[in-house]
Amino acid sequence: MTVAPTDLANAVRVLSMDGVEAANSGHPGMPMGMADAATVLWTRHLKFDAADPYWPDRDRFVLSAGHGSMLIYALLHLSGFARPTIEDVRSFRQVGSPCAGHPENFELPGVECTTGPLGQGLAMAVGMAIAERHLMATFGAELVDHHTWVIAGDGCLMEGINHEAIGLAGHLGLGRLNVLWDDNRITIDGAVSLSSSEDIPARYRATGWHVVECDGHDMEDVDRALSEAKADPRPTLIRCTTVIGKGAPGKEGTSAVHGAALGPDIVAKTREAVGWPHEAFVIPEAIADSWRQVGAQGAAAREAWQGRLSGHPLQAEFERRMAGDVDLPVEAVSADLATKPQATRKSSEAVLGGLAAALPEMVGGSADLTGSNNTKTKAMTPLTRDDYAGRYIYYGIREFGMSAAMNGMALHGGIIPFGGTFLVFADYARAAIRLSALQRARVVYVMTHDSIGLGEDGPTHQPIEHLLSLRAIPNLDVWRPCDAVETAEAWALSVARKDGPSLLALSRQDLPQFRSDAGEMKSAKGAYRLRAAAAPRRVILIATGSEVALAVSVAERLEADGIGADVVSMPSWERFDAQPQAYRDDILPNVDPSEIMRVSIEAGTTLGWERYTMVNGLRFGIDSFGASGPAPAVYDHFGLTADNIAAKVKAAL
Amino acid sequence: MTVAPTDLANAVRVLSMDGVEAANSGHPGMPMGMADAATVLWTRHLKFDAADPYWPDRDRFVLSAGHGSMLIYALLHLSGFARPTIEDVRSFRQVGSPCAGHPENFELPGVECTTGPLGQGLAMAVGMAIAERHLMATFGAELVDHHTWVIAGDGCLMEGINHEAIGLAGHLGLGRLNVLWDDNRITIDGAVSLSSSEDIPARYRATGWHVVECDGHDMEDVDRALSEAKADPRPTLIRCTTVIGKGAPGKEGTSAVHGAALGPDIVAKTREAVGWPHEAFVIPEAIADSWRQVGAQGAAAREAWQGRLSGHPLQAEFERRMAGDVDLPVEAVSADLATKPQATRKSSEAVLGGLAAALPEMVGGSADLTGSNNTKTKAMTPLTRDDYAGRYIYYGIREFGMSAAMNGMALHGGIIPFGGTFLVFADYARAAIRLSALQRARVVYVMTHDSIGLGEDGPTHQPIEHLLSLRAIPNLDVWRPCDAVETAEAWALSVARKDGPSLLALSRQDLPQFRSDAGEMKSAKGAYRLRAAAAPRRVILIATGSEVALAVSVAERLEADGIGADVVSMPSWERFDAQPQAYRDDILPNVDPSEIMRVSIEAGTTLGWERYTMVNGLRFGIDSFGASGPAPAVYDHFGLTADNIAAKVKAAL
Repeated sequence: MTVAPTDLANAVRVLSMDGVEAANSGHPGMPMGMADAATVLWTRHLKFDAADPYWPDRDRFVLSAGHGSMLIYALLHLSGFARPTIEDVRSFRQVGSPCAGHPENFELPGVECTTGPLGQGLAMAVGMAIAERHLMATFGAELVDHHTWVIAGDGCLMEGINHEAIGLAGHLGLGRLNVLWDDNRITIDGAVSLSSSEDIPARYRATGWHVVECDGHDMEDVDRALSEAKADPRPTLIRCTTVIGKGAPGKEGTSAVHGAALGPDIVAKTREAVGWPHEAFVIPEAIADSWRQVGAQGAAAREAWQGRLSGHPLQAEFERRMAGDVDLPVEAVSADLATKPQATRKSSEAVLGGLAAALPEMVGGSADLTGSNNTKTKAMTPLTRDDYAGRYIYYGIREFGMSAAMNGMALHGGIIPFGGTFLVFADYARAAIRLSALQRARVVYVMTHDSIGLGEDGPTHQPIEHLLSLRAIPNLDVWRPCDAVETAEAWALSVARKDGPSLLALSRQDLPQFRSDAGEMKSAKGAYRLRAAAAPRRVILIATGSEVALAVSVAERLEADGIGADVVSMPSWERFDAQPQAYRDDILPNVDPSEIMRVSIEAGTTLGWERYTMVNGLRFGIDSFGASGPAPAVYDHFGLTADNIAAKVKAAL
Repeated sequence: MTVAPTDLANAVRVLSMDGVEAANSGHPGMPMGMADAATVLWTRHLKFDAADPYWPDRDRFVLSAGHGSMLIYALLHLSGFARPTIEDVRSFRQVGSPCAGHPENFELPGVECTTGPLGQGLAMAVGMAIAERHLMATFGAELVDHHTWVIAGDGCLMEGINHEAIGLAGHLGLGRLNVLWDDNRITIDGAVSLSSSEDIPARYRATGWHVVECDGHDMEDVDRALSEAKADPRPTLIRCTTVIGKGAPGKEGTSAVHGAALGPDIVAKTREAVGWPHEAFVIPEAIADSWRQVGAQGAAAREAWQGRLSGHPLQAEFERRMAGDVDLPVEAVSADLATKPQATRKSSEAVLGGLAAALPEMVGGSADLTGSNNTKTKAMTPLTRDDYAGRYIYYGIREFGMSAAMNGMALHGGIIPFGGTFLVFADYARAAIRLSALQRARVVYVMTHDSIGLGEDGPTHQPIEHLLSLRAIPNLDVWRPCDAVETAEAWALSVARKDGPSLLALSRQDLPQFRSDAGEMKSAKGAYRLRAAAAPRRVILIATGSEVALAVSVAERLEADGIGADVVSMPSWERFDAQPQAYRDDILPNVDPSEIMRVSIEAGTTLGWERYTMVNGLRFGIDSFGASGPAPAVYDHFGLTADNIAAKVKAAL
C-alpha cells in the first residue's frame, strides 16, 4: 500500500496544528506552511537514521525559524526517533516536556541546536557546515561527507546576523549548506512589505550564493529545487513560495495564523480542507509506518559508514574528537610562561601555542582583530575555501556571526572553537554568547582590551558593565586572569569544560607576574589567597585581572602602616560561588566589617561586588563611562591608584 | 590668492597624521585615505555654518568609521568651529581633551553622534535621515530641508547592523541619505579578501539603493559622484576607491597604516611626498583662511533660513521641539488607568494613547512585535515612503537597526523616539542601547515579556540576566513597573528625561492594580513603601514589576503569623540609588538582619540584589535559564510562590 506524499505532509501539518491546539499556545502558521517542503527534505534528501541520532556523518537539520517548533517535533516523532513520543508531543509547551516552546538541543537528539532567537539558527548552520568541511579535510570523505539543511523565515533573513552569516558562508564557499527560505510574505506585524522592499535573491547572489526557486506546496518542484541545491558547489538559498498556515480556511496567508492556536472551529475546518478525518494525535497506521520507514532509510548508509570507520587508521582519533574528550597535558599550558611583565592577551597567545599543538580540534579565529586578540599561533594556517584543513578563520568584522558559527562548530562536534574580539564588543555578540551557555556548547571567547587599561580608544571601547553583565549569564564561565599562570589555568579549565562556554577577559597592557606554580591550578577554585596578611589581618582586598597588581600595591601600603591585608585573586566568580561553604568562609570570613573589612578593586562597575565585600565593605571601580587617554592617566582619573585606595581604606577602618 | 583643492585636502591629511603622531596613538590610515573625498564633501556639498553648529537645518555629517576621528577633528578645526582649537587637537587622546580617541557628540558640536563601534554610525544616520523626512513633512521644506552624509569603512559595511540599516533606508526611500564608502580594500587583519567576497554595490542595489563610483583621490571625480548622489531620489552609496594612508611612503595601502602612529621617519617622508613643508600643527595662513571661508559659506543660507523661521506660524512649536522641551500634562499619563488586573504592556499602551496625543514629537515603532509590545496607539499612522508625516515605524525584524535609528532620531532633535521588542532581545540591540546611554540620547525602549511570566515560549525567550545587565549600563534608567500607575509614572519620567535613555520592562501577563494616586509620582524616588507592616516589622520585602503582587501575598502570609512585613516596590534601581541617604535609610534601615530581614523577589537573576538585601538577607529569583510552560506552572517550578517564599522567610527568621 503506497502512501501519497501529501498524506505524509499532512501528517506533519495536522500534528503540528494539534500540538499547538492542545497547548493553546504556539505557532501553527510556519509548520503548516512548510509541512510540504519539510516532508520532501526529510523523506528524499536528509541523510539520517532515527535509530542513531548522534551518527556523526548525519546531515544536520536546523530549524532556524524555531518558533515553528512543532514542525521538528512532528518530524522527529513521525520518523521514529525514540523521543518525542506521542505523549511528549501532547505535552508540548508544558513544564517538563522535551517539546519546549522552542526547540532545545539538550532536550531532544535530532534537535541540532536551540533556535528561536531569529537569525541564529542559520548562522549556527554556517558553523556546522564549516565543521563538516574542516573535518572532511582532516579525516577524509569516507568518514565525513554530509550536508547541512536549514529552514529559515523572513525574520531570520531580516536580522543583521544574516548578513554576517551568509557573508562568511559565501566567502568560504560552503556548498554543503542549503537554506530553505519559507517565503510566505508575512511577518507578525502583517505583510513583509510593511517593513522590507529587499530583493533577497539578489542579495544572496551578491554574497556568493546560488539561488533556486520553487513552489513550496508542489512537492515535486521542491524535490527538483533541493536536487539543484545539492548539485551546486555554492551554498544555496532555496526560495520556497508558501502560504503561511496552509490548509487553515479563512486564516491561511495572514499573520493571524502565525503565533496562536487556531481554535476548534478552524481546526475542524482544516481537517476537512486537507482531507484528514483522523482524531487529534492519531496517525493512521499506513502513514505512520511509511514515516517510520523514512526514519530507517538511512540505516544502510550508516552501517556502511560504520564499516568504513572500523579499523580506519584514524578511528580512535575521530571517535575521541567527536566525543569531545580532551586529554590535556599539563605542559601544554604551563610551558614557556612569561616571567617578566606581560599583557594577559600575550600570555594567552603563548598558552595557545602549546594548547593548539596538543589539541588539533582547536580551531581559532578573530573578528578582524587577530593581532590585537593574539588568537593566531604561528603554527595555525588559515581555513579557506581552498584549504579547509586550516585551523584559523579570518571571520571579518562579524562578532555576532563568528560567535554563532562557533556555536555551530561546537554543536556539530569534533571541534573546540575559540574566537576573539574586544571585550566591549561582547555586546555585539551577546545573543550568541547567551545561546552558547543555554546550549551547553564548548566555545571559548577570547576578549581582550578588557578595561580602561586599553587607554586612548576611550569610552566607546572601554568595557565598564561588561564583566558583570557576562557573569550574570547562567552557565557561562567568565575568567579574568591576573598573570600568565592564571591565564594558562583559565585556558586549561575552559578547554576541559565540556558542558558550556567560557570567556577570557584579557588585558591589553602589561601586568606583573605573581605566580610560578602553574601545576597547582589554583584558579579552579575561582578565588584564592594570593598574598596573606603579615600584620594582624584587618583587610581583605579582592581583585581580578589587571587590578590584582593594584591590590598588591595597596596591601603593601597598608602593611607598611601595620594593617594586615590579604590579597585575594578572584579570576572567576562562578567557580568561587561553586566552592563549599568552608572554603568560601576561609577566603572571605563572614565577620563584621569592624573586624575585617572587605574591599573589591576591579576597573569596571562596582554593582554586584556587594556579594563579596558585603554592603558595608568598600568597592573601588568605575560606575560611569570611561575616558580617553593613556592608560595610567585614565586609572588616575578614576582614582584607581594604590595611594588613593590605601588612603580610603585606612579612613574607613 | 587661490588655494588649490589639494592643499585644502593635504591640510586635513597632514593635521590628522600629526595629531596621531603627537598622541603616539590613533588611526592615521583612514583620515589620510579619505582626506580628499572629505574635503570635497565639506568644501562643496555639506551645508553648515561653523558659527552656529546647532543650526537645525544643517546637513548632518556622520563619521561612521569613528576610529578615523582625527579626520573630523581636523575638519572641524580647519573650518572654524570654536572647538576644537589647535591646542585641543594637539591634546588628541589625552584625558580632558574634547578630541577623544573616538568622536563623542557630547564633547564637540559638529560631532553629530558618537562613533567607533562599527556599523552604528551609518545606522544612526538612517535615523537622522528619517527625522529629516518626518520633520519636513511636519514643518515644511522652508524649515527642514537637509541631507545626511556618512563616511563608512569596510567594517561598517560588514557588520550585521549594516543589513538592517540599509534595509530600512531602502524601504523608506531615504534619498537624502548618502554614504561615502571608503573602499580601501584593507581591514585590520589585512586584505578585505581575507574575509569577504561580497559584491557590495550589488547588495546595496538589491536593497533599494543607488550606487555611484569614483576615484577617491580625484577631487573632481568625487565632486561628480556627490552631485549624482544628491540628484537621485534613492539613498546612495558612493564607492570611493582609495588608498589607506594615502601619502605615507612605504606604508600606504597596507594594514600597517591603520591603527598606529607612523613614526617620525614616515611622517617626514609623507610631508615630502605630499608637498607639505610646514611644521606639525602649522597651517599656512592662506590655507587656513580658505578653510575658514568654507566654514562660513553656509552663513547666508542659515540667515535666510532664520528669516523664514522668524514669524513662521510654526516657529514656537518648531523651536520647542528642537530644544526638546516637554510640557507634560499630568492628565496625559494618568487618564484612563486600569482598575482591574492588566498586563503592564497593556497599561503602557493606554498611557501612550494620552502621551502621543499630547506630544507630537513622539515617534514609535516596534521590531515586528507591534501587537505584543503594544506600541501603536490607534491615532498613530504609519511612517512610510509615501507619508513621512506618519508617526509609527514598522521597523521589521531589526532590533539593532531600530535602536540605532532611534539614537539617530533623538540626536537629530525634534523627535522623542520609542520602540519595542521582547526584553530578552535587548541582547540583539545592546550595543545600541549602550550608545544611547553614552550619547545621552532620549530614547525610550519598550521591552515587554519581561520574565518567565511570558510562559510557554520558554528559555530562549525568558529574560533572566537581562534586568541586571541593563541596570549595569551607566546612565540608562531601567524601569520595571508593577501596575498601571507605576507604568504611567515610568513613562512620564522617561519622556521628561532629557539627558539619557530609559527602558521599560513590561509584563505579558495581567497584574493587579495597587495604586490609584498617579499624581504622586512615587516612582520618581525609585523605590517606596507600597505597604507598611501591620505587626511589628521584622521583614522588608523588596520587589519589582510582576513580583510586587507576589511580595504582597507573601506579606499577607507573614502578617497572618504576626510577622510584620513592609512591601517596597522598587521600579528603578538607578533612581533609588540617587536618593539622599536619609530616604534610603528610611525605606531600607541599615540594621542587622536579626532585627529586620530584607528579602528580594524578582523573576530574574539574584546577582546584584545583595546591594539591597545585604549578603545575609534572602534573595528569591532564578539563577538558571527558564522553562517552557504556562506562566503559573513556570513560577511554581522555580519556587516563586507566596507559600514557598513565606515558608522560607519564616524559617530564616
